[in-house]
Amino acid sequence: MKLAFNTWVYSSFPVWVPAYPLAEVIRRLAAIGYDGIEIGAASPHAFPDYLDTAARQEIRSQLADNGIAVSSMLPAPGGGPGFNVASPLEAERRAAIDQYIKVAQLCSDLGGKILLYVAGWQVFGTPIEQAWVWSREALRKIAVAAAEMDVTVVVEPTSADSNLVETCDGALRLMREVGAANVKVMFDTYHCLYRNEVPTDYVYRMGKDLHHVHLADLDRAAPGDGRVDYEALVESLRDVGYQGYLTMEIGFDRRSVEPDRIARRAFEYMKPLVG
Amino acid sequence: MKLAFNTWVYSSFPVWVPAYPLAEVIRRLAAIGYDGIEIGAASPHAFPDYLDTAARQEIRSQLADNGIAVSSMLPAPGGGPGFNVASPLEAERRAAIDQYIKVAQLCSDLGGKILLYVAGWQVFGTPIEQAWVWSREALRKIAVAAAEMDVTVVVEPTSADSNLVETCDGALRLMREVGAANVKVMFDTYHCLYRNEVPTDYVYRMGKDLHHVHLADLDRAAPGDGRVDYEALVESLRDVGYQGYLTMEIGFDRRSVEPDRIARRAFEYMKPLVG
Amino acid sequence: MKLAFNTWVYSSFPVWVPAYPLAEVIRRLAAIGYDGIEIGAASPHAFPDYLDTAARQEIRSQLADNGIAVSSMLPAPGGGPGFNVASPLEAERRAAIDQYIKVAQLCSDLGGKILLYVAGWQVFGTPIEQAWVWSREALRKIAVAAAEMDVTVVVEPTSADSNLVETCDGALRLMREVGAANVKVMFDTYHCLYRNEVPTDYVYRMGKDLHHVHLADLDRAAPGDGRVDYEALVESLRDVGYQGYLTMEIGFDRRSVEPDRIARRAFEYMKPLVG
Amino acid sequence: MKLAFNTWVYSSFPVWVPAYPLAEVIRRLAAIGYDGIEIGAASPHAFPDYLDTAARQEIRSQLADNGIAVSSMLPAPGGGPGFNVASPLEAERRAAIDQYIKVAQLCSDLGGKILLYVAGWQVFGTPIEQAWVWSREALRKIAVAAAEMDVTVVVEPTSADSNLVETCDGALRLMREVGAANVKVMFDTYHCLYRNEVPTDYVYRMGKDLHHVHLADLDRAAPGDGRVDYEALVESLRDVGYQGYLTMEIGFDRRSVEPDRIARRAFEYMKPLVG
Repeated sequence: MKLAFNTWVYSSFPVWVPAYPLAEVIRRLAAIGYDGIEIGAASPHAFPDYLDTAARQEIRSQLADNGIAVSSMLPAPGGGPGFNVASPLEAERRAAIDQYIKVAQLCSDLGGKILLYVAGWQVFGTPIEQAWVWSREALRKIAVAAAEMDVTVVVEPTSADSNLVETCDGALRLMREVGAANVKVMFDTYHCLYRNEVPTDYVYRMGKDLHHVHLADLDRAAPGDGRVDYEALVESLRDVGYQGYLTMEIGFDRRSVEPDRIARRAFEYMKPLVG
Repeated sequence: MKLAFNTWVYSSFPVWVPAYPLAEVIRRLAAIGYDGIEIGAASPHAFPDYLDTAARQEIRSQLADNGIAVSSMLPAPGGGPGFNVASPLEAERRAAIDQYIKVAQLCSDLGGKILLYVAGWQVFGTPIEQAWVWSREALRKIAVAAAEMDVTVVVEPTSADSNLVETCDGALRLMREVGAANVKVMFDTYHCLYRNEVPTDYVYRMGKDLHHVHLADLDRAAPGDGRVDYEALVESLRDVGYQGYLTMEIGFDRRSVEPDRIARRAFEYMKPLVG
Repeated sequence: MKLAFNTWVYSSFPVWVPAYPLAEVIRRLAAIGYDGIEIGAASPHAFPDYLDTAARQEIRSQLADNGIAVSSMLPAPGGGPGFNVASPLEAERRAAIDQYIKVAQLCSDLGGKILLYVAGWQVFGTPIEQAWVWSREALRKIAVAAAEMDVTVVVEPTSADSNLVETCDGALRLMREVGAANVKVMFDTYHCLYRNEVPTDYVYRMGKDLHHVHLADLDRAAPGDGRVDYEALVESLRDVGYQGYLTMEIGFDRRSVEPDRIARRAFEYMKPLVG
Repeated sequence: MKLAFNTWVYSSFPVWVPAYPLAEVIRRLAAIGYDGIEIGAASPHAFPDYLDTAARQEIRSQLADNGIAVSSMLPAPGGGPGFNVASPLEAERRAAIDQYIKVAQLCSDLGGKILLYVAGWQVFGTPIEQAWVWSREALRKIAVAAAEMDVTVVVEPTSADSNLVETCDGALRLMREVGAANVKVMFDTYHCLYRNEVPTDYVYRMGKDLHHVHLADLDRAAPGDGRVDYEALVESLRDVGYQGYLTMEIGFDRRSVEPDRIARRAFEYMKPLVG
């Protein structure tokens, strides 16, 4: 298993500051020892429309120079454009699908293979069945485009933030209904905690379909500073033969944070566990 | 003085849920008694690219039918696109200026006259003087475009969220450096609290240049549920002859909120004070 | 009984900001309805060395124009110069006596009749008996000088801040040992609370020697926002025939305060009680 | 890197007790192991007017006998005399400049080389640009005098307490505008925390101009008892080649403190980090 770190806490999403250029983040995470970087598609790091071919090539060089890989990418849902695949606004649904495909392309351009899928959320007035259909159809289109780029789309249950795909079962159901070879599932310990569920249950139930894992503890604290049993989690992941990344998605929901500190703290706690 | 309510808490920005369609929000705020609605340019309410002429006309009808006016509009900074006018990325700066102009147009189309300006923030590695110049030049361009739409741009110090225009003096300085007739200032009691400053000091110092006011208390609580002295604030506003809106920008930083409740609570506390 | 308000919360002592010029403070306190202002000898209000004859005359005019009297004055102990009358440094003891006399003069120049006396504190290594003697001899010299200006010096027990005169008995003992006609006593409800003592006990025990009263509640909150029984206090003061000021000394130990608000809140709570 | 300890917590500034004579403080800090002592110019330690040549010589002997150096000195702003270099009172501004020069002289007399500069604060009614000019001109005069004593003046951003130089950029701008060889910058982790900024950002941005560092955590707690990442801080200081002192400025804002304990606790946490 490899360790990666998600860039939100270094970006202007959702909290505007502190914010660092992507080159700085790549350098710092590599220096701490991370194998991978999960790049959020938010400014000032990687909003696709802002990065032309030259910029992408430069990022790729920086990654190579620092010996760190792109573990995965994900959009930044909820900002002005929303990017809610289940929005009642058709224009927003179309824009969301476009954005996912743009992020898949950027991910591929940077050497990444995994795109996270947040299945959207129900706005007041939209029947939940309708929201589900919109999300499923969006995922279908995204999966087709991603397949051509050799990118796998992983569905993440996000109970703490949304109301459509909240559970292990919800993610698996969406995956099965789409039925594409490059659609898989993932989970985040933080969302398990929100539902008072047990992370190892997710590992065993997702099994071979589990292609990505987010680690975060209560209040998006670093692993080790909360309640999750990471030893058991790592053991269960070994049991099911998981070989992907463990990605820290932490600290980003507040301004009062030192990004390097939380990145180092998480690494120092998890590294001995994964060996 | 009139009372208005900001839409964030009903939108998917920055927290995805609960979220309501704009028509629903217009109806509810009018029913509570608000004179105005401050519409944030975020999904699912009013991201400019998602609203064609017909959609804008329909919103305008809803506003008229419910007897509520657009007090003001503002962009949603910090989401994926950032819209940081002081970003180190030229593409983002251009996109931010475009977005402000689009929001000004939408504001005008909906009958509004005030556009809020968040002056951006310094990303690590950008000299503060450079960030300031970028922000000032952006404001210049936005002001020119807004003038043609009869929209006034008001600079808001946002100390709690940013690091460029944080104070009364900072906002006034930016206003003066731009020197356009349709560039004025505003303040938010929440940002005063963050700096442990006194709101009435802002009123007396901004004086005739004060064109908009945000009300929010500690933790974005409703007026009356915190520490600010609203009686003194209203009195000082009368002293300087303020005739604009008092706009509640509250409750939007958490999922555990009932939007209608906080809107009603703020109205019931402030209405007797403004008479 | 008359109501007065102490200026610390509007000054740079002990917390630097917010700070207002003295003219502004006079105007605001008079507007709220206070009969008197207790002026602390701290910048930017009334550090004696900074105020020449013209400046004093101007303050006197401002007081008259606003219809508010100087209830009392006091030095600002503990800053760089210390002004600890019981300091182990002879130079500091001399400077402290000088400063008290300068403040008495300024008080007189502004039409005031009461000078508060903080009896100093024991520094590690100084025998308590020695500290007492130094404080008593200082008070003797100050009283002689003050007598010529028709100023009464009132000894205040300051248990929360010091360790020499902490109690009703301590203040009375110091007063008696000095034995001057213009040396009397006072107390502050805040210091009573620190010792878990009962304010009315101070009133009855100080009786005819009680010449000044400070009101403040837990954490220097305004009367009414804490634990003290002000109705009983006012009744006991009537019992002993007290005709001096009730002076609010509140809010000054923190930056997060609106001075006008706390001044108004205290006034609105106490005014009905004193009739 | 060397470790020093600031004397406030042992002095009568800003809290009157506990207070210890300077000789006692020198002995205790040396016994704990500190390389340096940062002496605040407050009673009963080192208010310049109270210390004649003999007294200064005696302190110098005590320092030598205990093998501890004066790392730096600083005035005690905000007490009665204010010493606000940006005060609206000309007399106070003059007194402040005089006091800084006196402290520089005392620092030099005690073998110290660094004088801290608190840039003052804006009083209500003073335009911020005017306050800035007053502060800059004061610093110019102080720097000229200090240069003759071989003392370097370091500008400290003090956001938690003031409103004029609050940031890394503000300190650097003041330094550059003065443009004297013996004017440099410093920062305090406590003030970084107040602004929710990252201490290592200050290190990298101040770089070669960084000549002094204050360590303190939330609520002025000792390093290790809060939120700052001291490992990263020390590493970043090594990166930029910093060879000055790390000075603890802690515990002084409350009476309920044991000075020796907090001094020892800070030393024991930091010593292993600096090696």
